[in-house]
Amino acid sequence: MEALNPNPSYSLTLRVQMPNRAGMLSSVIRALADAGGSLGQIALIQQTRKISMREITVNAASSDHAEQLVTVVKSLPEVRFLDVRDRTFDLHRGGKIHIQSKIVVRGQDDLAMVYTPGVGRVCMAIAEKPQHVYDYTIKSNTIAVVTDGSAVLGLGNIGPAAALPVMEGKAMLFKEFADLDAFPICLSTQNVDEIVETVKRIAPTFGGINLEDISAPRCFEVERRLKEELDIPVFHDDQHGTAIVVVAAMLNALRILDKPIGAVRVVMNGAGASGIAVARLLRLAGVKTITLCDSKGSVHRDRPDLTPEKLEFVSDQSGTLADVLRGADAFVGLSVARALTPEMVRTMAPQRIVFAMANPIPEILPELIEQDATVIATGRSDYANQINNVLAFPGIFRGALDARISHFTTEMFLKSAQAIASLVSHEDLAPDFIIPSVFDARIAPTVAAAVHQVARDQGLAKT
Amino acid sequence: MEALNPNPSYSLTLRVQMPNRAGMLSSVIRALADAGGSLGQIALIQQTRKISMREITVNAASSDHAEQLVTVVKSLPEVRFLDVRDRTFDLHRGGKIHIQSKIVVRGQDDLAMVYTPGVGRVCMAIAEKPQHVYDYTIKSNTIAVVTDGSAVLGLGNIGPAAALPVMEGKAMLFKEFADLDAFPICLSTQNVDEIVETVKRIAPTFGGINLEDISAPRCFEVERRLKEELDIPVFHDDQHGTAIVVVAAMLNALRILDKPIGAVRVVMNGAGASGIAVARLLRLAGVKTITLCDSKGSVHRDRPDLTPEKLEFVSDQSGTLADVLRGADAFVGLSVARALTPEMVRTMAPQRIVFAMANPIPEILPELIEQDATVIATGRSDYANQINNVLAFPGIFRGALDARISHFTTEMFLKSAQAIASLVSHEDLAPDFIIPSVFDARIAPTVAAAVHQVARDQGLAKT
Repeated sequence: MEALNPNPSYSLTLRVQMPNRAGMLSSVIRALADAGGSLGQIALIQQTRKISMREITVNAASSDHAEQLVTVVKSLPEVRFLDVRDRTFDLHRGGKIHIQSKIVVRGQDDLAMVYTPGVGRVCMAIAEKPQHVYDYTIKSNTIAVVTDGSAVLGLGNIGPAAALPVMEGKAMLFKEFADLDAFPICLSTQNVDEIVETVKRIAPTFGGINLEDISAPRCFEVERRLKEELDIPVFHDDQHGTAIVVVAAMLNALRILDKPIGAVRVVMNGAGASGIAVARLLRLAGVKTITLCDSKGSVHRDRPDLTPEKLEFVSDQSGTLADVLRGADAFVGLSVARALTPEMVRTMAPQRIVFAMANPIPEILPELIEQDATVIATGRSDYANQINNVLAFPGIFRGALDARISHFTTEMFLKSAQAIASLVSHEDLAPDFIIPSVFDARIAPTVAAAVHQVARDQGLAKT
Repeated sequence: MEALNPNPSYSLTLRVQMPNRAGMLSSVIRALADAGGSLGQIALIQQTRKISMREITVNAASSDHAEQLVTVVKSLPEVRFLDVRDRTFDLHRGGKIHIQSKIVVRGQDDLAMVYTPGVGRVCMAIAEKPQHVYDYTIKSNTIAVVTDGSAVLGLGNIGPAAALPVMEGKAMLFKEFADLDAFPICLSTQNVDEIVETVKRIAPTFGGINLEDISAPRCFEVERRLKEELDIPVFHDDQHGTAIVVVAAMLNALRILDKPIGAVRVVMNGAGASGIAVARLLRLAGVKTITLCDSKGSVHRDRPDLTPEKLEFVSDQSGTLADVLRGADAFVGLSVARALTPEMVRTMAPQRIVFAMANPIPEILPELIEQDATVIATGRSDYANQINNVLAFPGIFRGALDARISHFTTEMFLKSAQAIASLVSHEDLAPDFIIPSVFDARIAPTVAAAVHQVARDQGLAKT
């Protein structure tokens, strides 16, 4: 396994006590740095004339590395190791979201208005005019984040309970970036019919459904059927969120290289949910030649094992990824770590674009191809050009709920991608800056406005 | 329909402009009072030497009455009516709860800990040791409030969307009174098998299930099957919440009258979900003779139309409610408005107890039997002795989640009732004070402690 850089997912807080003497703190810090730790905040907890107690935050590169750092500190002379806390686990303790009342219930009068008997009048208003559910309930601002736990991050089929921390994280991001109320629904079934049934049955509370981490090819059918059978918008983020951000990044990469989108050949590795969706949206954006590869090599028309989705992208080129990559303009990976080598990259056409988005370890580490590729992007926050779905899904749903659409259209996804790309100004645009930061506050409103505008243009907006 | 008192469920805010002159305001107020309105806050919005603009809050008794009050104000000379707002509808606009993050996401480092890639470590910890879901997710503090909209308040089968305001209200109360995170799940099915299936499939997110407003007899089977098939506690509030509070009130009523519980005869009217549950818990509390009536009169052993639940309470006494009520010590109504008359009450044994809990209009209005009954209770907040489930369900679930029980037992319900009853001190206990106020801060912790203690005694507590 590649040695990744120290990063905040392995962030420790070490509490140590040492003699209050010049040079002691620096010796601890040097030891941690020598062992490969990346130092963060250092707090003074307590100090007397004799001793000082400090909390040192340090990022490691892995669980094993974290243990090494602890061992290093424990072995230092005169330093007393007190305890270590894992900041990531600390943050997740008890869950990351909670439900709050919007109204303070101070006494009987308040109770009589928000609950019985007053609430009965509101119920009857909705019973008499169903559209009032959007006026007098949470539906107008509430999203279900639905998973079956079958394809969670890069971790695979870990089940609904183990998926819950991701769904809560997603709910946090919906709130943070688009002021939407999202609630995690983790299903204890992985059967397509049962998933569809269940989501339909719980739909009355929600204004939209965000499907998450459901494995291909089931995710395609789940989304298609829910879209047909529900009157609220359904969005499989692994597909469309990824596709929107990849296309945004690709538009800007091509802008830098001044390559017309209709003339480039893109090789894609990975034909799962996100791979198929990216290929579809790239095609809608104007890419004419896409060579799709899965674990068995290129999706060639003579292969007998192709799903309907892969059949949309059959090509005449057969061979391994290395074979078909020769002469390509761009590589787009949504596959597995180490699928790509520098040698393979060097066979591509000049001015190479490499999007290596395998999670958490990319198809190739950017430092290995700095000289060979012009524009490099990954899914990671510790490299430039992070392809992160957070750029898309909050604004997508903000726009959908604002416009009160009943379903998404691919045109909305394409316009959203163009809107995200347009937020990188001509002056800022550079090989290491093709996509805005997720903390750029303009993103969600811009994406929401794009969705709303397409909804109006297509006659789908109800507000 | 009886003229109810003005109450906050019909609370209006009237905005009026009038000459700034002594006597003007009082004439408006007198007109509203003469028309039967109950005046609340009066705010001065704007005042010049010529005019003053005020907002007057006034409670009406019904929608028609509210319209009359507006008409009265409009007809006043020199008073300009500007607008009227319905405070209840205002409070419900956009829904009453929202989702909040517990953690502020300030930058990439935070994002890498709460979301990818850091969250992956938390997911794996749960995948490896499933009990960790209680440590690192919202499950440990989260309740689903589940309804099918089939028996909402006294409104009947109004469906899942129209039921949502009640479920949101319930979620507010869970938060307010027990710091629990509750989320409304309104199901678009009323089929027992489908309800059971759906709740089981969404259970991974939740630490407990509160069933709400599901009509009898389906509610009995739904609860029984979920209790068998889930490893988290399931509670049908209409049954057990009501039963706990009624039994608490009954224990105190009997304390006042110094009647031993084993010697009283209770006549119950209403054999729906709450009626059956109340009858069961009264029996467990020691009542030996219960005569249960439904819309066809007493549940007599010769009747061919009895459900299994009603069969638990068959009696030898046949006849109408009026027939069987003669000589009874207590009437407990969970039925419909106007089921009881003063004449019927006067046939009961002396020192009468009347619990008239039909919602929103009681079986008999308390003012009609002030001279005939010693202890009177209703479900309403505008009379003494309000039988309100809010006294039970927050503490019930607080205790259940604290003890991490997998199911409730009837012993927990009985001890909770006794705990609530015990909060009315000997000094305070009086015919018009048999049950504590829902705003008594001791209630939820006391009920939670009772549940936790029984869980320990029965070997069901996991913490």
